[in-house]
Amino acid sequence: MSWQKGQKLYEGKAKILYQVVGDENLVWVDYKNDLTAFNAQKKGSFAGKGELNCQISTLIFKHLRAQGVESHWVETLSPSSMICKKVDIIPLEVVVRNRLAGSTAKKFFFTEGSPLKKPLVEFYYKKDEWNDPFVSDDQALMLGAVSDPKVLEDLKRLALKTNEVLLQVFTQADINLIDFKTEWGWVSGELQLADEISPDCARLWDKKTDEKLDKDRFRLDLGSVRENYERIWQRLKELEKNL
Amino acid sequence: MSWQKGQKLYEGKAKILYQVVGDENLVWVDYKNDLTAFNAQKKGSFAGKGELNCQISTLIFKHLRAQGVESHWVETLSPSSMICKKVDIIPLEVVVRNRLAGSTAKKFFFTEGSPLKKPLVEFYYKKDEWNDPFVSDDQALMLGAVSDPKVLEDLKRLALKTNEVLLQVFTQADINLIDFKTEWGWVSGELQLADEISPDCARLWDKKTDEKLDKDRFRLDLGSVRENYERIWQRLKELEKNL
Repeated sequence: MSWQKGQKLYEGKAKILYQVVGDENLVWVDYKNDLTAFNAQKKGSFAGKGELNCQISTLIFKHLRAQGVESHWVETLSPSSMICKKVDIIPLEVVVRNRLAGSTAKKFFFTEGSPLKKPLVEFYYKKDEWNDPFVSDDQALMLGAVSDPKVLEDLKRLALKTNEVLLQVFTQADINLIDFKTEWGWVSGELQLADEISPDCARLWDKKTDEKLDKDRFRLDLGSVRENYERIWQRLKELEKNL
Repeated sequence: MSWQKGQKLYEGKAKILYQVVGDENLVWVDYKNDLTAFNAQKKGSFAGKGELNCQISTLIFKHLRAQGVESHWVETLSPSSMICKKVDIIPLEVVVRNRLAGSTAKKFFFTEGSPLKKPLVEFYYKKDEWNDPFVSDDQALMLGAVSDPKVLEDLKRLALKTNEVLLQVFTQADINLIDFKTEWGWVSGELQLADEISPDCARLWDKKTDEKLDKDRFRLDLGSVRENYERIWQRLKELEKNL
């Protein structure tokens, strides 16, 4: 099918959304080469980042759909563009942690990468001006992120299901999925995965060496950001044959 | 009944616990004149503080018991000493907020004292070395604060019931109960209220003037700390006749 890019709807830190001419239920998503961290206080960019993330996300959306996790992804048009369903987004970042790292490890003075008995789901309220604060279920309800506590339970269930699929995918690619962030929204009354799943919003460590392959390389000035995003993509591409 | 103070068990920021000679299920609690804030980085003290908090807590424990909220309080011996049941304490501070103030107001950039549609219950993990971090239910479970999610629901229910009683009491005293912190623990398999309920761990504003009557006077260097604790006690004492 051929789509036509319409007016710009929204430019985020890592993607630009456009209308799709003639279809109000779809959006055209261009992945940018920009990288930001610490609520956009740190900015960077590398050629090919958009393509890598778009391709990685595409592959993951396919795996997820095959295993029953529905997402906004419709079709990938070019290495850095996809068509997605328009989603009424829930203003929560839903984070799943298989090991403790980042802000939560710091908060509890845990070593980066501390194992957990079972995956932990966390909500962060999406509001840049507030620095996307961590919230409890009751705070999420208080802020009106969702109106029904049942939706929070559904988000947790879906996030954990997504985690199961991602663990399978990344384990096959010899990558340890430490944690990842998701966003969700409503499509015709159904909760569906939105945004992207990429090294921008996941901690991915090499299974053998524990090397960081993800955006932490940028956050922590570890260098070779592009090379490591490419390592992820190369390994995942190998799996695509099995899809 | 006459009790005999035994060996010191534990000295906290605001109270000292002693054994009760001949009864392993009880503790002798002395209320101190010390005041601390910001995880004990700020320290102060005033004569009579221990007495005021012990008497205020006593009155509140009585009201709560009369309305079905069981606590560790057994008997008040002197203006600054009480006998309490020994409690297997849960390492969570359970905060109830009727209006947003303090850390949560800051986190969400809300004006101090912003009204809430309904009371909000929050958990903080009791660990000074971690600065008593705010935790979600799932984080509280992950940290092993309780082993059963049902206990968190029970804590919320009991904290809200406590809030109802306190709202009655303080409203009669022309005081606005903004928020308060509670601690809970197990006594013979039953969840009971522990610690204290006092201006040290509640935000109490004069109903007519919105003046702060509580520990925020110390935290924020507003002066007249003692005088305002005494105002609370004088007003509550008037209610004691109705008990």
